Amino acid sequence: MTSTEFRLKSGERIDELVINNLKLIQHPDEFCFSLDAVLLAHFASVRCGGSAIDLGTGTGVIGLLLLARGSAAVTGIEINPDMADRACRSAEGNGLADRFRIIHGDMRDIKELLPGGGFELVVSNPPYRPVGGGYISPNDRVAMARHEVTASLVDVVAAAKYLVKYRGRFAMVHLPERLAEITVAMCAAGIEPKRLQLVYPAVGKKPNMLLIEGVRGARPGLDVLPPLIVYTTDGSYSEDIMKLYRQDR
Amino acid sequence: MTSTEFRLKSGERIDELVINNLKLIQHPDEFCFSLDAVLLAHFASVRCGGSAIDLGTGTGVIGLLLLARGSAAVTGIEINPDMADRACRSAEGNGLADRFRIIHGDMRDIKELLPGGGFELVVSNPPYRPVGGGYISPNDRVAMARHEVTASLVDVVAAAKYLVKYRGRFAMVHLPERLAEITVAMCAAGIEPKRLQLVYPAVGKKPNMLLIEGVRGARPGLDVLPPLIVYTTDGSYSEDIMKLYRQDR
Repeated sequence: MTSTEFRLKSGERIDELVINNLKLIQHPDEFCFSLDAVLLAHFASVRCGGSAIDLGTGTGVIGLLLLARGSAAVTGIEINPDMADRACRSAEGNGLADRFRIIHGDMRDIKELLPGGGFELVVSNPPYRPVGGGYISPNDRVAMARHEVTASLVDVVAAAKYLVKYRGRFAMVHLPERLAEITVAMCAAGIEPKRLQLVYPAVGKKPNMLLIEGVRGARPGLDVLPPLIVYTTDGSYSEDIMKLYRQDR
Repeated sequence: MTSTEFRLKSGERIDELVINNLKLIQHPDEFCFSLDAVLLAHFASVRCGGSAIDLGTGTGVIGLLLLARGSAAVTGIEINPDMADRACRSAEGNGLADRFRIIHGDMRDIKELLPGGGFELVVSNPPYRPVGGGYISPNDRVAMARHEVTASLVDVVAAAKYLVKYRGRFAMVHLPERLAEITVAMCAAGIEPKRLQLVYPAVGKKPNMLLIEGVRGARPGLDVLPPLIVYTTDGSYSEDIMKLYRQDR
């Protein structure tokens, strides 16, 4: 894995991912990745040498981390052309252009973009919130990455169902308040929830994220993992979080 | 509320529930209540003066605690005639026979036992485990209370759907591994999961119980509560558990 040059455009910066010396191009005015993406990339069951796809890949951070964890090849679908271009340049800059393919496209048109049943792992850090009553400008790309403007929960699960192999996995990070909807959508798609971890900002608080993974065609039976606590009582990252950012893990 | 005499049969004992000086007749050879029942009775949203029903009431402990928490009247359905008789005598001994009605019957025949839509709250601490491959003797009543011999998850939710008022609540204690099945069954019955609490034996462990409450006819949106931890690091009950057993709460 040789790092080549990063082709930066105006206003962009390079951020360090720590693991494997990976770097990422981000634009501060666009959607930048946060802890949820890192948690998902480490939560998903990665089979060494397997193929994975990231629905709504954004900056590409999840794809890069999946490659670092052992995936042989990752595909990323991204609807925002500037984000897709930036993720491409991040893959290239890390010397991973041959293993991380970015497709600029709409996951709702997945059947026109890719053949079905080709991936062992499908992951997504999708928009979390329903659109609701308020209008979201197509110019507000950060809002579009947070709200279900371009893809709803049902769209994401439908794309995952189409792409995942029989016995393959679909992992997602989302909001706890949407757990029932997620469960119903996954079960209706034949993707049985098998692992769930709730992420708590601190001890004694309500969870503010969930990590869920289902297996296509599996029997019922959910493994609910111990709580993942983000911050210790003194406000610093917990050991569980720190180890995700450590080079030697 | 005047306590009258407890009519005990051979081999039975009287246990203290602490709250409101309630007492309970139990038989050590039959199913005896445990922490899950107490947690459910305190988790359910009890409206003062409302009506509640307990599906598979067993010893009657949940019904007694719901009355202590403010329910005006509780009905209990119990398939085991000896358990039903014992619960009746516990209600009577506590001077609550007029507010706690025990029906000896099968919740799968609920439409023959009670009119529909009459309860603001339906609760159940049902058998947790599918029957699986092994044969369970009808003589092994403790096993029958633990395995879905006489009522499956789907049967319990179907009975709850029939009994609960529109906008009424259904609360259940169950195993975390069955969360996906529970969610799908509740949603299919039009009972939207609105509150979920996972119960952990200790900090850093996987949960071993879940408490879930749904509202008939509600919109999606789940409130996942902070973890309920049962034991502290020194092996004693946590403060969250101790307060359930305190007279002055």
